[in-house]
Amino acid sequence: MTPAAIASLSAKILDALGGVLGPAPVALHEPSFFGNEWLYLKQCLDSTFVSSVGEFVDRFENELAAYTGANYAVAVVNGTAALHIALQLAGVRAGDEVLVPTLTFIATANAVAYCGATPHFVDSDIRTFGVDPEKLRSYLDAQTEQRDGQCVNSSTGRPIRALVPVHTFGHPAAIEDLMAVARDFGLAVVEDAAESLGSFYRGKHTGTFGQLGALSFNGNKIITSGGGGAILTNDKELARRAKHLTTTAKRAHAWHYNHDQIGYNYRMPNLNAALGCAQLEQLPTMRAQKRALFDRYVQAFAGIEGVEIAAEPPECESNYWLQTLVLDADRASCRDVVLELSNTAGYMTRPVWGLLNSSEPYRHCPAMNLQSAEFLAHCLINIPSSAYLVGPRREQA
Amino acid sequence: MTPAAIASLSAKILDALGGVLGPAPVALHEPSFFGNEWLYLKQCLDSTFVSSVGEFVDRFENELAAYTGANYAVAVVNGTAALHIALQLAGVRAGDEVLVPTLTFIATANAVAYCGATPHFVDSDIRTFGVDPEKLRSYLDAQTEQRDGQCVNSSTGRPIRALVPVHTFGHPAAIEDLMAVARDFGLAVVEDAAESLGSFYRGKHTGTFGQLGALSFNGNKIITSGGGGAILTNDKELARRAKHLTTTAKRAHAWHYNHDQIGYNYRMPNLNAALGCAQLEQLPTMRAQKRALFDRYVQAFAGIEGVEIAAEPPECESNYWLQTLVLDADRASCRDVVLELSNTAGYMTRPVWGLLNSSEPYRHCPAMNLQSAEFLAHCLINIPSSAYLVGPRREQA
Repeated sequence: MTPAAIASLSAKILDALGGVLGPAPVALHEPSFFGNEWLYLKQCLDSTFVSSVGEFVDRFENELAAYTGANYAVAVVNGTAALHIALQLAGVRAGDEVLVPTLTFIATANAVAYCGATPHFVDSDIRTFGVDPEKLRSYLDAQTEQRDGQCVNSSTGRPIRALVPVHTFGHPAAIEDLMAVARDFGLAVVEDAAESLGSFYRGKHTGTFGQLGALSFNGNKIITSGGGGAILTNDKELARRAKHLTTTAKRAHAWHYNHDQIGYNYRMPNLNAALGCAQLEQLPTMRAQKRALFDRYVQAFAGIEGVEIAAEPPECESNYWLQTLVLDADRASCRDVVLELSNTAGYMTRPVWGLLNSSEPYRHCPAMNLQSAEFLAHCLINIPSSAYLVGPRREQA
Repeated sequence: MTPAAIASLSAKILDALGGVLGPAPVALHEPSFFGNEWLYLKQCLDSTFVSSVGEFVDRFENELAAYTGANYAVAVVNGTAALHIALQLAGVRAGDEVLVPTLTFIATANAVAYCGATPHFVDSDIRTFGVDPEKLRSYLDAQTEQRDGQCVNSSTGRPIRALVPVHTFGHPAAIEDLMAVARDFGLAVVEDAAESLGSFYRGKHTGTFGQLGALSFNGNKIITSGGGGAILTNDKELARRAKHLTTTAKRAHAWHYNHDQIGYNYRMPNLNAALGCAQLEQLPTMRAQKRALFDRYVQAFAGIEGVEIAAEPPECESNYWLQTLVLDADRASCRDVVLELSNTAGYMTRPVWGLLNSSEPYRHCPAMNLQSAEFLAHCLINIPSSAYLVGPRREQA
């Protein structure tokens, strides 16, 4: 593009953003509290049970299981902790490799590293932003061998233990096809559903396809518990072990202390669960608001050639957690100008994360050809996505 | 002791407990909320900043630093996370050994294990319940050698990188003597001050003697943020690195993601910091209440021979976090009967933690002779210690 064309397109994009968002400043994503948030926090405080045990933790876990359709949900301190424990329970051990998309937040890879394992980076599909199942299958065919029933990286000789599909920005990955690849190569599947609470693939909630799934309730997510996460599973024994590992692996006893393995202090405090319970009640409303915001963006950008708003994949319902501008390949050169202009104007926008295979801690890790992720890294812009942009922000009490 | 003598002494102890505590049930330790807890939580919710950033986090860190006299405090998700990062920053690496008392909560050893290091268990002083400095010095003299300025375990050949003194139940360990031992053997010192916020050794706050200290604000501590912890240090660069490591090691930029090492999602949510700020304002009151409770226990047990309430060591001010009955050596055989009777009566009591050198995950770790800790493990009973036992429990609004 010529500088003039870049300037012209960037101005149109800024104009369209302004039309949807109104007066600046507008943050990328902020929570809204218009339900029972204050009531439950107050109940929690009045009970004096604000910490490691309490009725809100049990209730949050039960309600998360009911909403997602998972048999079990175990509330933890954040999404990173959920992934860490889910990977351990999926059998990931020191010296293993774990297949992780290069296009994701760094926590996905960090959780692998916490297990002493090495992320092995795989490419994304340019439509879903999730791991590309066909490309993954071809790669594993060429790059791995089965030894004693274990998938092994032919180059490094290390076991490839698991695959971590990410439901990027809330849009479901091609999870059924990915499950088939994992089955054929003997890989465990831990879904990183940190961004996709409220997103469904063919009517089934994301995070419930793999042996385990991880949710996040960080402040920037569709609902928040301040800090928080959860492990989803349909397996009773995995759920029991998840609870045990995240509560310092202490065997139950009224007063004796007896820990049977190296556990973690990863449980969600009751105070955070109280906020989570109130937010979960609002999830259907937030989903509807985010879908309405998507519609507004689609309308606003309809007349701008070469720019689209990322839509949910076919047969999927996305929670539209983070709205995303997709620039055509030949218009990607205006990304940085759009970022500069919009942030200067007070509309917070963001490129996708830096690709993990280029990040300092992980640049020596194994990786397939990452052509599509590299393409996406240059043409995506996340734009303001708070549900309150089409609804109330907080209780009008 | 004869069964009759056990029954008689146990009955006296139960009677004395009842005299102090009044009607059952009484928990071991519960928080009290009689200050600005509601107000600050509501302000936090109204601001919508409940998560990873917010003014309460900054304020909590500043006020912790001011109270403890540390130059810097970094708020994190819990005390275990604080210890984990403090150990990393003290230079603990995979393959190292770290000196840890066997008489402590398992999190102290777990934090060492998270670094890939091995706990090396040391004995406690029967008066302070903290690491015995003289015994430690003799042991290190006999068991270690200096190689290239590094203390090395002569038996295992592994570097002994650090010492983790614990201020048990809030009572300060002999920290100056321990610092001298560490200096003479070239060991880093990370203080586990999880239980000792409000405890001072010769007027200086516990957790501020070593390179780094770790606090906890779990629900059972003297003040609580639901879940929470903090890293204390006087070193500006260590503080900067603590903040960086606990916030996913992301380099500052308005929109770009760039992480320069394997970091952690360990920051304290603003919601929890709001509660922490309100609780910290009440710390002087809680300390006074706990001291008053200690006095009541001392009076109630004054007439019972062979039973004492653990008192702060000389030249120390303890926060009296967890009140402790100390049975004479020849009366230790009534411990289990006291535990059974008191818990059955609804007064929650507890033995000390199982010694870590006997715990399943750590029973193969190196250890010195642990005679005093083994003695203490049989003659200590923690008794109800909530500040509200001599004051208000929650706001009377």
